[in-house]
Amino acid sequence: MAQNTIGTIFKVTTFGESHGAGLGCVIDGVPAGIKIDENRIQQALDRRKPGQNFGGKNNASVTARKEDDKAEILSGIFEGKSEGTPIGIVIRNTSQHSKDYGNLASTFRPGHADFAFFEKYGFRDYRGGGRSSGRETAARVAAGSVALQILENLCNIKITAWTERAAGISINKVDFSEIEQNALRAPDNEAAEKMNAKIEEIRANKDSAGGIIACRVTGLPAGWGEPVFGKLDAELAKAVVSIGAVKGIEFGAGFAASDSTGSRNNDNMRTAADGNVIFESNNAGGITGGISNGNDIFFRVAVKPVPSIFQSQKTISVDEAGLFTDSDLVIEGRHDVCLCPRIIPVIEAMTAIVLADLALQNRAAKI
Amino acid sequence: MAQNTIGTIFKVTTFGESHGAGLGCVIDGVPAGIKIDENRIQQALDRRKPGQNFGGKNNASVTARKEDDKAEILSGIFEGKSEGTPIGIVIRNTSQHSKDYGNLASTFRPGHADFAFFEKYGFRDYRGGGRSSGRETAARVAAGSVALQILENLCNIKITAWTERAAGISINKVDFSEIEQNALRAPDNEAAEKMNAKIEEIRANKDSAGGIIACRVTGLPAGWGEPVFGKLDAELAKAVVSIGAVKGIEFGAGFAASDSTGSRNNDNMRTAADGNVIFESNNAGGITGGISNGNDIFFRVAVKPVPSIFQSQKTISVDEAGLFTDSDLVIEGRHDVCLCPRIIPVIEAMTAIVLADLALQNRAAKI
Amino acid sequence: MAQNTIGTIFKVTTFGESHGAGLGCVIDGVPAGIKIDENRIQQALDRRKPGQNFGGKNNASVTARKEDDKAEILSGIFEGKSEGTPIGIVIRNTSQHSKDYGNLASTFRPGHADFAFFEKYGFRDYRGGGRSSGRETAARVAAGSVALQILENLCNIKITAWTERAAGISINKVDFSEIEQNALRAPDNEAAEKMNAKIEEIRANKDSAGGIIACRVTGLPAGWGEPVFGKLDAELAKAVVSIGAVKGIEFGAGFAASDSTGSRNNDNMRTAADGNVIFESNNAGGITGGISNGNDIFFRVAVKPVPSIFQSQKTISVDEAGLFTDSDLVIEGRHDVCLCPRIIPVIEAMTAIVLADLALQNRAAKI
Amino acid sequence: MAQNTIGTIFKVTTFGESHGAGLGCVIDGVPAGIKIDENRIQQALDRRKPGQNFGGKNNASVTARKEDDKAEILSGIFEGKSEGTPIGIVIRNTSQHSKDYGNLASTFRPGHADFAFFEKYGFRDYRGGGRSSGRETAARVAAGSVALQILENLCNIKITAWTERAAGISINKVDFSEIEQNALRAPDNEAAEKMNAKIEEIRANKDSAGGIIACRVTGLPAGWGEPVFGKLDAELAKAVVSIGAVKGIEFGAGFAASDSTGSRNNDNMRTAADGNVIFESNNAGGITGGISNGNDIFFRVAVKPVPSIFQSQKTISVDEAGLFTDSDLVIEGRHDVCLCPRIIPVIEAMTAIVLADLALQNRAAKI
Repeated sequence: MAQNTIGTIFKVTTFGESHGAGLGCVIDGVPAGIKIDENRIQQALDRRKPGQNFGGKNNASVTARKEDDKAEILSGIFEGKSEGTPIGIVIRNTSQHSKDYGNLASTFRPGHADFAFFEKYGFRDYRGGGRSSGRETAARVAAGSVALQILENLCNIKITAWTERAAGISINKVDFSEIEQNALRAPDNEAAEKMNAKIEEIRANKDSAGGIIACRVTGLPAGWGEPVFGKLDAELAKAVVSIGAVKGIEFGAGFAASDSTGSRNNDNMRTAADGNVIFESNNAGGITGGISNGNDIFFRVAVKPVPSIFQSQKTISVDEAGLFTDSDLVIEGRHDVCLCPRIIPVIEAMTAIVLADLALQNRAAKI
Repeated sequence: MAQNTIGTIFKVTTFGESHGAGLGCVIDGVPAGIKIDENRIQQALDRRKPGQNFGGKNNASVTARKEDDKAEILSGIFEGKSEGTPIGIVIRNTSQHSKDYGNLASTFRPGHADFAFFEKYGFRDYRGGGRSSGRETAARVAAGSVALQILENLCNIKITAWTERAAGISINKVDFSEIEQNALRAPDNEAAEKMNAKIEEIRANKDSAGGIIACRVTGLPAGWGEPVFGKLDAELAKAVVSIGAVKGIEFGAGFAASDSTGSRNNDNMRTAADGNVIFESNNAGGITGGISNGNDIFFRVAVKPVPSIFQSQKTISVDEAGLFTDSDLVIEGRHDVCLCPRIIPVIEAMTAIVLADLALQNRAAKI
Repeated sequence: MAQNTIGTIFKVTTFGESHGAGLGCVIDGVPAGIKIDENRIQQALDRRKPGQNFGGKNNASVTARKEDDKAEILSGIFEGKSEGTPIGIVIRNTSQHSKDYGNLASTFRPGHADFAFFEKYGFRDYRGGGRSSGRETAARVAAGSVALQILENLCNIKITAWTERAAGISINKVDFSEIEQNALRAPDNEAAEKMNAKIEEIRANKDSAGGIIACRVTGLPAGWGEPVFGKLDAELAKAVVSIGAVKGIEFGAGFAASDSTGSRNNDNMRTAADGNVIFESNNAGGITGGISNGNDIFFRVAVKPVPSIFQSQKTISVDEAGLFTDSDLVIEGRHDVCLCPRIIPVIEAMTAIVLADLALQNRAAKI
Repeated sequence: MAQNTIGTIFKVTTFGESHGAGLGCVIDGVPAGIKIDENRIQQALDRRKPGQNFGGKNNASVTARKEDDKAEILSGIFEGKSEGTPIGIVIRNTSQHSKDYGNLASTFRPGHADFAFFEKYGFRDYRGGGRSSGRETAARVAAGSVALQILENLCNIKITAWTERAAGISINKVDFSEIEQNALRAPDNEAAEKMNAKIEEIRANKDSAGGIIACRVTGLPAGWGEPVFGKLDAELAKAVVSIGAVKGIEFGAGFAASDSTGSRNNDNMRTAADGNVIFESNNAGGITGGISNGNDIFFRVAVKPVPSIFQSQKTISVDEAGLFTDSDLVIEGRHDVCLCPRIIPVIEAMTAIVLADLALQNRAAKI
């Protein structure tokens, strides 16, 4: 598992299991002299943490379990500015009380990484998912905040992700001001209420829900992305699909483009009054030839239903001799029912990490 | 553009523009002593080349332009076996006659990389797309053949991609024996005929079509994939999205999973009579926690309509002072109308490249 | 400064400045299921820490300043074994009391990285060297211990470095049992005593001393090293020269080989009674063509005198406008006088890190 | 052997065996719009090729065998300028007539990579050294010329290597104008004559000679080098030691610094009349903390005697069952006697490759 680092110039290395002492990251390649606001790192973590209830309203998606993810910054920032040296961040696991994992030590949870991990390593950290736990994404969010602060020095960038669909219900409008006002982080409070009610119903059925996240980046200049393997869309695809629970990604018109024709799908260009180039549409999602073209970056992400459900499930156990036997499993504890609201800061973070890296790489494109 | 290498242990580096002297690749990390059949490399290239007509039948998708992509192997193979040293392959461009590119030298084709390249490099190779031309994928296909031959030494692997939908028409069955019998490489001759007729109609309208490619890998053992950033699905996403014209990828149930529930989407496991583990479904596409779980790998790819169309398009030109002006463009020459049949060997190749790399990386998982 | 990671499969990322909150490392690519003794990590750190006096005897080389470098392991080890996940280690800085750095904030210490850092980053962490402080090597030593424990699972390896020469005085014998018995870590107690006396004299003169470290690795199999750029000697050269204060490295006969002839310098081979291959000499230092040949690995390292001395030195200062002026500097505080005894565990650690990485890479050489 | 690529932003990948069809390189990360003179690439290759006689005079060091190393550039350069795309270069092997290798197919040449390769790959390309042949360095020299042309766009750089000592005879002066006037590329014609005579004598004895190469880089700005593992000296050490026949490298005062004291070894700084910083000495070789400090870069390289000699040597053979037996070997054919004059362009090339990469990386140091 030698792939816990992402990036070429702006490089993020993460570590930590869900129930070990702590997790964290090392953020390398941060240019020197950039103002880094440590509070913003903490705020980003707070947006991802469990137990959020969005202003007192009921939130059917997330667990009520409260955790404080406190980022401690060990290096790389001096007098409020980046030093040009690696930023080490540690987040301790506070609730890793080694409670009774019971049958989980030898039984593989369906839909989880348990079985694949066991086959790979011949070994399993059964304590709540270990390295494959969603908890790992806290480190990504911390690093994403640093990436964003770098990007803000380069352009007037804005990265916004939102729930477009959850539990089968879609939004009907995109009003960014409503995103943080509802339990789903949907840009449509009304639709969010319906989603929340539907998820509450699914939760009552001991089941779970999935959804679709959309992400838009504005303010990005043309020219970022490194063909032919470090293309902007390719790197975003890798970064976003590396988040647990993500099962697909599409850019611009995406899968719908496959039914279109060239004349409808091509984004025509015109010269604006100020001499700049504008596109008459954005079916490409702001990326042509793997390079940002000045249009907004836009992509959608498929999020699967939470695999931990409270119904009995058919699965297998392994005994000490390594033999498999059929088993029925009922998962206990507290779990999110729908990942949408909490995966949004993670998708924004991975986007920022990719963009910061490609922005710095792009500096070598011309002398 | 320092990203023309993909992979960590099995590494492929490609080079070449569409209208330069030639293109090629260096394939590094090939273990020594593996039988490499050079004919299979050539056969893979032949499956990708333009001008194919699939047994004399009309093929509406592809250009009639004939090109011979002859692979010359310069190093790394000795007496029919890999030496453990890098394999250098060169494919010459035979039809790069520097014909009149006319207005293309200063006008940006909509839907193509032209404008983004110009913004990135302040410079443009207008000769048919340069590095962003689909011609670049010939090098990927050559490397993919070597990757596949390595994989065949490790397991009884089979990588098969096919057209699932083109020009809005879907297949109704999956019969692998029919894939190479029709113009679309669809596993359903009847549906393929309808697709071909529809594409012929679109071609007559001076327009172009897109489609969806599916890919299945059988015979892969559990355990391949390197969390948390080198996950199997993440690496496949990067590799496949790095192919021009690809606008999305989804694994297993993919976007449909977002409307499902945990109880329906989780793939339950049972013990087979022989003691092995079987899954009762494959909504995960054979990948959990970013690691192959022993189920078939399955993913779908969105392919956009060919951007080169013969209708007049609204776009911009740049003059020598760098000023943009509106322009109308009619593209000439010969072009594919639908990429589906020719992108299939490229998707298979990128899949093989990713799998060979992760197979070799996985050897470090346990001592 | 995006180069705080070393390795391809076994990857070590370090972070931390001398006077920040702490330093540490993330060790990625550790195979699962390996017994990792955390005490050995701590013992390795203890061998590097300041304030050692080697059994009560006077040690002229090192500062009397006592620091406890306590390694806290945050992840990657579960029930005494590696999980296959990254091992995160944090070592807190306990004595970073932000005392008065006086003129050091604007004056550049000769022989130190101060001026080059300032020119690179336009910025300076004047608190004791920042990232360029020797304190950074604590993280390397922790990672080296993990590397060594991996290697011990693969072969009967032994990595031993020692002081061959210090302050102009050479050893006259190599008795490994004496290395830890004297203040210099020399394999010759008698020579060590002379070195120590000479260093005491140099210290009294407010000056400092350098030396030469030798390193021998036994038990390594033939076949490690990845031509043409990841050769065993090339990777060792990079890893060892990346340690501050190192100004040269030579393998086997090294610079002396340049005066030899082929007939004398070639290591002839013979078949031993047991059928194995033996070399009649070891001028190559156990490496031919960049690959271990089964002979002992042997190399020597040049260590410069400690640049911090207590004499007044001619240097420059920079004012707030960025203008340079001449300046005289007297450095205060406590500093080592000769790095030899404390650099030995660092050289051994970097050797182990390189070897662990090449051992894992070598697994891809043959299928 | 997945390590045939060097560099992070400016990346060079090489391929090719001595007696295959050809060798070459892919040069990635070249910024767009740089004037690349293809003649200079060829001239660099001509300086490295065998059969040179330096103006008609006898050259005892090199073989009289003539080879034309013709570089063919396949991509990446358009209308005399870099496109920003990878530059593919092929150099064909013209004299790889598969003559009789006789006992070389099963006998291991002492001092060569033969035995280590066999142990690593279980397989051997006995045709003249295969990938471990010095012929591989032709690709490095071609890439080095491109690197140098990039660097010349950034600063007034000059990279000069020369023979400082050969066959035990040292130069007495450094006059750059004489370097290309003698058979040794020594900056002292008189000393070169003595070296040449001595080498002639050694050649007559069927033996070979080694030497020491010095390299100086002027015009480099301060600030290049990426701590802590991508330090300028660390990267140069790796790149130079990766050249076959190199057994050591030292920077500035190097091994002599180990006998010095801090007060003598530190390079004091003063402010020049123009406000710039000057150093009163250069014991650091222009590198402090792994970063260029504005002083000249200076290093020395130990080159071992050519291992191919015409005396009978004691070695071993392997039979088809893999059993080793003692053997006496007399090497035939034509070989260099001293590598000094031909290794100089290779050392200069590797220096340029490292510097171009660190120059581009340094652009990410500050925003």
